[in-house]
Amino acid sequence: MEAGMASDKFLRNAWYVCALPSEAKRDLLGRTILGQPVVIFRREDGTPVVLEDRCCHRHLPLSKGRLVGDVVQCGYHGLEFDGTGACTRVPGQTRVPPGARIKSYPVVERHKFIWMWPGDPAKADPALIPDMRWNDMPGWASVSSMLRIECDYKLLIDNLLDLTHETYVHIGSIGHEAIVHHPIKTTRDGDKVTVTRWIYDHQPAPFWKAAIQRPENVDRWQMIHYAPPANIDLDLGVAVAGTGAPDGNRSQGVQGRNLDLITPETERSCFQFWAFARNFRVDDRALDQKLRDTVTTIFNEDKGLLEAQQRSMETAPPEFRWIDVNADAGGVQARRALEAALEREAASRRGQAAE
Amino acid sequence: MEAGMASDKFLRNAWYVCALPSEAKRDLLGRTILGQPVVIFRREDGTPVVLEDRCCHRHLPLSKGRLVGDVVQCGYHGLEFDGTGACTRVPGQTRVPPGARIKSYPVVERHKFIWMWPGDPAKADPALIPDMRWNDMPGWASVSSMLRIECDYKLLIDNLLDLTHETYVHIGSIGHEAIVHHPIKTTRDGDKVTVTRWIYDHQPAPFWKAAIQRPENVDRWQMIHYAPPANIDLDLGVAVAGTGAPDGNRSQGVQGRNLDLITPETERSCFQFWAFARNFRVDDRALDQKLRDTVTTIFNEDKGLLEAQQRSMETAPPEFRWIDVNADAGGVQARRALEAALEREAASRRGQAAE
Amino acid sequence: MEAGMASDKFLRNAWYVCALPSEAKRDLLGRTILGQPVVIFRREDGTPVVLEDRCCHRHLPLSKGRLVGDVVQCGYHGLEFDGTGACTRVPGQTRVPPGARIKSYPVVERHKFIWMWPGDPAKADPALIPDMRWNDMPGWASVSSMLRIECDYKLLIDNLLDLTHETYVHIGSIGHEAIVHHPIKTTRDGDKVTVTRWIYDHQPAPFWKAAIQRPENVDRWQMIHYAPPANIDLDLGVAVAGTGAPDGNRSQGVQGRNLDLITPETERSCFQFWAFARNFRVDDRALDQKLRDTVTTIFNEDKGLLEAQQRSMETAPPEFRWIDVNADAGGVQARRALEAALEREAASRRGQAAE
Repeated sequence: MEAGMASDKFLRNAWYVCALPSEAKRDLLGRTILGQPVVIFRREDGTPVVLEDRCCHRHLPLSKGRLVGDVVQCGYHGLEFDGTGACTRVPGQTRVPPGARIKSYPVVERHKFIWMWPGDPAKADPALIPDMRWNDMPGWASVSSMLRIECDYKLLIDNLLDLTHETYVHIGSIGHEAIVHHPIKTTRDGDKVTVTRWIYDHQPAPFWKAAIQRPENVDRWQMIHYAPPANIDLDLGVAVAGTGAPDGNRSQGVQGRNLDLITPETERSCFQFWAFARNFRVDDRALDQKLRDTVTTIFNEDKGLLEAQQRSMETAPPEFRWIDVNADAGGVQARRALEAALEREAASRRGQAAE
Repeated sequence: MEAGMASDKFLRNAWYVCALPSEAKRDLLGRTILGQPVVIFRREDGTPVVLEDRCCHRHLPLSKGRLVGDVVQCGYHGLEFDGTGACTRVPGQTRVPPGARIKSYPVVERHKFIWMWPGDPAKADPALIPDMRWNDMPGWASVSSMLRIECDYKLLIDNLLDLTHETYVHIGSIGHEAIVHHPIKTTRDGDKVTVTRWIYDHQPAPFWKAAIQRPENVDRWQMIHYAPPANIDLDLGVAVAGTGAPDGNRSQGVQGRNLDLITPETERSCFQFWAFARNFRVDDRALDQKLRDTVTTIFNEDKGLLEAQQRSMETAPPEFRWIDVNADAGGVQARRALEAALEREAASRRGQAAE
Repeated sequence: MEAGMASDKFLRNAWYVCALPSEAKRDLLGRTILGQPVVIFRREDGTPVVLEDRCCHRHLPLSKGRLVGDVVQCGYHGLEFDGTGACTRVPGQTRVPPGARIKSYPVVERHKFIWMWPGDPAKADPALIPDMRWNDMPGWASVSSMLRIECDYKLLIDNLLDLTHETYVHIGSIGHEAIVHHPIKTTRDGDKVTVTRWIYDHQPAPFWKAAIQRPENVDRWQMIHYAPPANIDLDLGVAVAGTGAPDGNRSQGVQGRNLDLITPETERSCFQFWAFARNFRVDDRALDQKLRDTVTTIFNEDKGLLEAQQRSMETAPPEFRWIDVNADAGGVQARRALEAALEREAASRRGQAAE
């Protein structure tokens, strides 16, 4: 990781999940987000705080210190910082030197995720937080967790926008030969990309068979919604064959919503914050555990591949090019949308610099 | 390891051992050879195949996938490649995109080694495979194995061409004070270098005492044959003193042939594929095991030194120079022969580029 | 670590501790000092020797070889070097090639430390060895040990020159709230920097309570003496309140002398050779052990912080600046003194080059 490396690689004026609610505690959590070290904690009133994780005095990560009330005390010389990043005390002297402050980041807890805004705080409008309502919607239940993956976050976007890989990577759970034989439809609306696949009248894959608990064939849908920088939600489900299809009422079916909020750690590593929300057997705590385990297993299968892919790309000769296939349409569109957003942000920076 | 780094450092138009026969299976073996990732397997008919280990679609190493019949199926999106490197199937579509292929390498199984040709396939003449006949010759028995050593392969060439080190590194097995007191004779014939040493009328080192199983003094010979890039065979043995010497019939002796086929992995690591063939007690399976263990122990002693030598060289100041001694004559000649071969290959590339 | 990197970063014409007496044995110890590999051993008469740890033949670290009498025998081809670095034997030949020698370093054992001089041997005047007499003074006892810390050695200088950190890092042993409330006085005399703090009439911190074994309040002093490159001794102690203060006789007190001789290993790692000498309970061997354990624990607390600080500094953006506070006065002066010494040495080198 290099200092300042992030400037043009990441979209900075955007909300990113930096922690699950269970990770933000009355304790200091150090984490690198978009190449910047941050320290995450909760105030006594429970509101989350995200500060730069580097004391302005001698650079010790503040996450090595301790939380005293709502103040972070550096673990080296005891300097104290409040939730705005201002240094409020220097032990042994009454005056706080001018300029003694660290960066604080806008932060919002919503839909059972903790979101931070790494860019210009003046632009941090909470209305821009992506809609992940399924994660805390009445009548739905959800489980969630996080993986750290040593790959460029764009590889994970590709992965989630092309589910043909399920057949080769996850054949024991959600993969099914039928997937690859049913074409996708890809649409783009501004920055947003949607990939839709319907798979009619087939015996469901093990995961979905266990979910629907019916012997009949099913119709299965995969509707993937992407928005930059790396927010993905997958509307997934099966219904008894004939009742699922686009014009069906799906009343004899089950629906899940897999939410994937991807946050770059560095240029070659990222966090996948995920939730799996469902509208079936919502009071079944044993099912919660089973889903948490199954989804974790599935994403760890992907993690192994993505990390191998990353290493392979890093050692490929410069002239080596990707060959695209039909199933890449969603990923290709998503990358274009991301590139466009990055270019707009770069143009805006240049505009500000020129002012 | 850097992409494309290999271009001028390695002789590319040459046969290199990439695997032992026992390593090439109905399964995918990933390995880096001359800086390039390759995947090695056997077809259903048993013939070995060596392909580029990087899917042309999204770069996943193919060795992470699986072997289906004679076809390699990528473990990510299921693209299939035959033994020529041609993509034969893209799941979910009937058309295979133009240019969807990976590199395949000429490969020959001979003398109980699997040889590949990393350079221009048109030049891959099997007649150029070095003669390692002792490894599968009637009346001889052999054991073999492989080590990965984190050093420039040229350091291992030096090591094998100067056996005075046996006295300091391997005193418990093949080392003997007498070795250093008997001078070598070094000859060069074109690219080939031979180093010969005769040690007369001495009590044999432990290894050879166990091999000959006679109480008398012996004459011992070491005849080392080198050819570029890094093929070395050592004609080694002892015979009862007076019957061994250059003009003796060696009828009261034992002979071994240590074959060392060195393959660069990267600029700072290599594989040592070795065999130890012998013309004595050829039906003694317990001796097989003992020889495999002893030679492995000896080569691991060298490995430890070579890796320390490599690290020391990497941290030496640029003005630091080697001092040569008499015993280096073989290694110095071998390096000159290798340099000459590299220069011829570079000249040939420039000639082709100019055409 | 890069070859030749050390030239301008380290003061070379200075004595550095390279080993504790117990580490220099009839055996070969390899260690990196100021970026250079050295091998340390004792002659049969007990005098220490420091040689370059790299054979001039094929670069194997000599510390991988063995000590034969007073001669180091290379573990690869048996070349032998005496204590002056001269090659005295090349196995298999009578002539030693011209130029076959390695560097030898001036070395002195004094005050229970082994000192080496990495710079110009002609300037290695033993009178320049810092006065660490408390380590072997009649009426005093001492314990000592060594830590390797992965940080720029200058961070450890800062650490030892500002003891306010004791309150935040070592509160269970030597830290005390009173420390930060008592200001330091910093003086500089040429290259030497002294930081003095008096803390009057307080209940002592656990470490000092155990040392003085008296129930009364104490006066505590911390007088830190620094001289370039990185020699620090701390005159520390407590005396019954009223008898300690600057003009007291301290007869009802205990005094310790913490000696810290810091030696850069590379630009981002260093050795802290330390001793803790005392003038109380000097015959108490159980106290020796307790002090060794306590000081080791304290310095390991610092090590954890210093290594985190180093990593944080390495990833900080270039525009990130330190904010100084009052307690930094000693460290700031010490860095200036070190810079001045480095500049004088650079000027002297330029002068020599111009001659």
